[in-house]
Amino acid sequence: MPAREEKMALDLGPAAELEPELAAYFEKCREKLGFVPNVLQAYAFDNAKLKAFVLMADDLMLGDSGLSKLEREMIAVAVSAVNHCHYCLTSHGAAVRQRANDPVVGEQIAQNYRAATLPGRQKAMLDFAVRLTEAPDKIEAADRQKLREAGFSDRDIWDIAAVAAFYNMSNRLAAAVDLRPNTEYHFWVRERPPAQAARGESRAAAAPQATQRQASGAGRRRRRA
Amino acid sequence: MPAREEKMALDLGPAAELEPELAAYFEKCREKLGFVPNVLQAYAFDNAKLKAFVLMADDLMLGDSGLSKLEREMIAVAVSAVNHCHYCLTSHGAAVRQRANDPVVGEQIAQNYRAATLPGRQKAMLDFAVRLTEAPDKIEAADRQKLREAGFSDRDIWDIAAVAAFYNMSNRLAAAVDLRPNTEYHFWVRERPPAQAARGESRAAAAPQATQRQASGAGRRRRRA
Amino acid sequence: MPAREEKMALDLGPAAELEPELAAYFEKCREKLGFVPNVLQAYAFDNAKLKAFVLMADDLMLGDSGLSKLEREMIAVAVSAVNHCHYCLTSHGAAVRQRANDPVVGEQIAQNYRAATLPGRQKAMLDFAVRLTEAPDKIEAADRQKLREAGFSDRDIWDIAAVAAFYNMSNRLAAAVDLRPNTEYHFWVRERPPAQAARGESRAAAAPQATQRQASGAGRRRRRA
Amino acid sequence: MPAREEKMALDLGPAAELEPELAAYFEKCREKLGFVPNVLQAYAFDNAKLKAFVLMADDLMLGDSGLSKLEREMIAVAVSAVNHCHYCLTSHGAAVRQRANDPVVGEQIAQNYRAATLPGRQKAMLDFAVRLTEAPDKIEAADRQKLREAGFSDRDIWDIAAVAAFYNMSNRLAAAVDLRPNTEYHFWVRERPPAQAARGESRAAAAPQATQRQASGAGRRRRRA
Amino acid sequence: MPAREEKMALDLGPAAELEPELAAYFEKCREKLGFVPNVLQAYAFDNAKLKAFVLMADDLMLGDSGLSKLEREMIAVAVSAVNHCHYCLTSHGAAVRQRANDPVVGEQIAQNYRAATLPGRQKAMLDFAVRLTEAPDKIEAADRQKLREAGFSDRDIWDIAAVAAFYNMSNRLAAAVDLRPNTEYHFWVRERPPAQAARGESRAAAAPQATQRQASGAGRRRRRA
Amino acid sequence: MPAREEKMALDLGPAAELEPELAAYFEKCREKLGFVPNVLQAYAFDNAKLKAFVLMADDLMLGDSGLSKLEREMIAVAVSAVNHCHYCLTSHGAAVRQRANDPVVGEQIAQNYRAATLPGRQKAMLDFAVRLTEAPDKIEAADRQKLREAGFSDRDIWDIAAVAAFYNMSNRLAAAVDLRPNTEYHFWVRERPPAQAARGESRAAAAPQATQRQASGAGRRRRRA
Repeated sequence: MPAREEKMALDLGPAAELEPELAAYFEKCREKLGFVPNVLQAYAFDNAKLKAFVLMADDLMLGDSGLSKLEREMIAVAVSAVNHCHYCLTSHGAAVRQRANDPVVGEQIAQNYRAATLPGRQKAMLDFAVRLTEAPDKIEAADRQKLREAGFSDRDIWDIAAVAAFYNMSNRLAAAVDLRPNTEYHFWVRERPPAQAARGESRAAAAPQATQRQASGAGRRRRRA
Repeated sequence: MPAREEKMALDLGPAAELEPELAAYFEKCREKLGFVPNVLQAYAFDNAKLKAFVLMADDLMLGDSGLSKLEREMIAVAVSAVNHCHYCLTSHGAAVRQRANDPVVGEQIAQNYRAATLPGRQKAMLDFAVRLTEAPDKIEAADRQKLREAGFSDRDIWDIAAVAAFYNMSNRLAAAVDLRPNTEYHFWVRERPPAQAARGESRAAAAPQATQRQASGAGRRRRRA
Repeated sequence: MPAREEKMALDLGPAAELEPELAAYFEKCREKLGFVPNVLQAYAFDNAKLKAFVLMADDLMLGDSGLSKLEREMIAVAVSAVNHCHYCLTSHGAAVRQRANDPVVGEQIAQNYRAATLPGRQKAMLDFAVRLTEAPDKIEAADRQKLREAGFSDRDIWDIAAVAAFYNMSNRLAAAVDLRPNTEYHFWVRERPPAQAARGESRAAAAPQATQRQASGAGRRRRRA
Repeated sequence: MPAREEKMALDLGPAAELEPELAAYFEKCREKLGFVPNVLQAYAFDNAKLKAFVLMADDLMLGDSGLSKLEREMIAVAVSAVNHCHYCLTSHGAAVRQRANDPVVGEQIAQNYRAATLPGRQKAMLDFAVRLTEAPDKIEAADRQKLREAGFSDRDIWDIAAVAAFYNMSNRLAAAVDLRPNTEYHFWVRERPPAQAARGESRAAAAPQATQRQASGAGRRRRRA
Repeated sequence: MPAREEKMALDLGPAAELEPELAAYFEKCREKLGFVPNVLQAYAFDNAKLKAFVLMADDLMLGDSGLSKLEREMIAVAVSAVNHCHYCLTSHGAAVRQRANDPVVGEQIAQNYRAATLPGRQKAMLDFAVRLTEAPDKIEAADRQKLREAGFSDRDIWDIAAVAAFYNMSNRLAAAVDLRPNTEYHFWVRERPPAQAARGESRAAAAPQATQRQASGAGRRRRRA
Repeated sequence: MPAREEKMALDLGPAAELEPELAAYFEKCREKLGFVPNVLQAYAFDNAKLKAFVLMADDLMLGDSGLSKLEREMIAVAVSAVNHCHYCLTSHGAAVRQRANDPVVGEQIAQNYRAATLPGRQKAMLDFAVRLTEAPDKIEAADRQKLREAGFSDRDIWDIAAVAAFYNMSNRLAAAVDLRPNTEYHFWVRERPPAQAARGESRAAAAPQATQRQASGAGRRRRRA
């Protein structure tokens, strides 16, 4: 059994020789994040598995969607909170703080999304994601209808469902192998914003609409898994 | 809201024009199964999503592994039973019946895997998959250790975890969109085997080791999703 | 401990000498079903217990009621799905297929009754039966009221409750003793109906009202327990 | 909707004219208990249903068994505690107090059987009954084995299972119809025993073996349902 | 491990020498109740812990509030029923019987508060307390709003929450140390009231408003913990 | 209904005039923490309630005990994780980071204590605290025995139970009134330690024994509630 300082509790042997496309992807992670997320390193024992995971994760989290990238991260975190997933709460909690540019809101959703001050659209989105996590067998037409009433299209509903479902997979894989998050995530976007510091307020309280802003710009674009 | 006879409860607009590789994949499904599984048709509104799903599903269920293809289907069904997923119980229940060449064992696992007469290895495998489904936050080193004691390598444990995790995703996506299984699945491998009919026994009871046999041979190879 | 091919996991000694009335009942089972259901054989170690069980089961499932016999079987299966009861899902799943004359609907209810396309009356009936199964302590006047609004009389509500309650008993007795269903049930009403085969549809989708038809006619009348 | 002072929340119309055997049974209840238990009055709208219920209940609770009548009442109460069943906790809680001749032990089991000071045999019996109530789908051979190791025969295991299963039925029927217990039960065996009063102890604490004594004697023999 | 006849399952050494204020408090208990509640004796190993507990318990249960003392006891019992706490169900069940001067209502709430015939205000109060007990993470503004609509002020809501929360603490401490209730509680207010005896009714049924009456008067004032 | 930027969702009117002892306590909070924790401000509408809360919290968390102050904070956080309590995860998560002088370990326990690398003693302690939180009715002698085997005295077991129980109270009060944590907590001990930054490791991974060190020294001593 590997030591717990390792990336995970399974010994899968040496990493595979990465296909050029995947090697380039890892290199881009190192450039932009300063490290390769451990989930990717965990999958790196097998090119086919790594490739399928990267394609699915990136399409879901970074592809075109009626959901902002921040909203998709919020779903990831709300689902991971139900499943108490250390890996995803750490990595995607960091992503929510970064995309919202708010050191508080990621914590709130990681602890209990009901404690975050969210617009009705996002509350409905997380209500659905959490119910789908807790009781998938009880989803009925009325649950989808609430999303439509909150302004989501059927295409958006697919995306909410697909992201919530994906993290129910990732949470379980991470739990099964005791996947350890890169320590760096803990330190992302933890500083009190200057204006706020002066006022003694959190940014989330001062500007709840921040949670709706979508992170953008080449400099902040980061690939996450 | 689409009628329930449709493939699912969301209206995602017309299918995308499939990329040649995916069009060929659909054609192969029609040849071998006589139909394209509805989950693939559901994903067909977007080439990128369909491709990622097919890559991941086929790698997990048909790629190299220390688990037989039947064993992977058994995990799919045991997980889907916990989540009461109509789509996956129907399609993968059929796959278990087909791969085991036994009309009974798929039913048993779809109802309660504890009711199937399984070798210790497979019992341990399903115990882990079900616990990971029900309480991912409670998986600990001792759970992995039980798999090792049942004869699984760390690489096998990854595969058990990955398949169980994948169906926790698929079950939830299917539930969220009310995905309807192709009717054909209901009729796969339902006939009483001739010898058994004469003896008045089920094949599973007569030959429990059948559940360990792996379906093989080009003629029976079918792509499933 | 008896082998699992036996009827159950307890060794209760030889069957009692059946009282004439019960012996005749067993004979009738053999004539009509081709076998004596294993639950009856399990009870056959004691005439008094067998008699009480047969009286109660037959009154509930075959006696006069505002619920059709199919509806009572649907309750049995929906309850057994919650409890993951292999015996009852197999035997009563077969009964739903037979009484509905539909190879699909029994599967749907055995997997997740919410996936079946049911008239509002039957949906309300199964919602109540399942809630009574999962959280009997939380039933309140509002739950009964929903049944009245779905068109059920107070007498019907008693019957819904009594059937749901009975299978909460039977499921637990079957689980406690690992009762094995007769293999024959697996093969009942599995054929694709001719018309449907031509159209490529399931009968349930083609004719959802089929679930409301009550099986009748001496030839199809079968005693089940 | 009938007033809550009534026997239950359903209006099933007038009681049926009881068959002579059942009328005599009611008369015996009045003689011995001073009243007809409301569950029997509830069933009295239909002779066939009442008869089946009485036969089953009396066989289980008063028939020959390796379990004492007190032990069977303890199972009834422990199961009813899980299900929070007002009717059965009141009526069978009274029965435990009476059969144990101890005003305390019935309360303990109605609140949490783990709080009662029980011999290992009875602890194992209630552990099984409660697990069968909470998670029937998870019962396995090991659960039955624990009962054998606690000294129970396979025939006893059937009886433990059958009684626990029966109260899972009765609890749900009572909950579904809001069955109200006869007020008299509240006052049975509530007095502090004289010796104990002097010592300032409960009888259960002073003589835990009392829970194994079986109430007997014609004068105290009471039919309960 | 101490014998179960002791006050609890932990051996904390001899009681501390009580500070005069606490010694006087114990003396008052003996005068009014005839005994010192075991929870206080359990805490008596440490003056600071005992004092904090007494201050908090007495403020919550006996201090000024928009809730009657009976209502606060009802919350204590409803919460303890969810947690199956033997100590609190026994001691506070007795307190409800005493404050309501009704031998039935305490049993009803200890078994399932939904079985008690309560005015809407008290039903809403217990619904909130039980939901807060079962799923504190799911409390939302709508839950508080239901209390306001039932006539409670924000100050009352604090008190409902504080009492329900306090018994979630006490129940767990009692469970953790296997705290045994004083036997005397079992015998409080068990007699059938004279008028009722003549009419053959329970007082709760005859006078449901009794549950709203607040016990008062120096003679009946008792300190409870 | 007060705005969510307020301390809580209830409007309890103006704070009471604090008794001198409590006013001094608040002043000390401002000196040492820079603010008065919102839970104390919430209680400040009533001197008696505030005093009882402060006495109990400070005795449990800062009084003499065989548990280090860090261990008591770990229990607070592990319990609050089960209950998804935003207030306590934020405030006591900060306290764990501070007392461990480790920016990572508080996150781990707030997410899933099983993901933290803990000595066996602390693992056993948190296993007990979490089980007591989730299923207090199922605690038995064997659970206490595991703590003794992990090296805890009966007096320590009381403290583990009392702290776990207390946060089951606090979590529920906070949830019921939507208590908002002071924003400052989010920023405590978030910096990557210098040595670790150079090595690219978390302190917890580098020195897991840090979790056993007890924070001390006047400068770091802070009163928390």
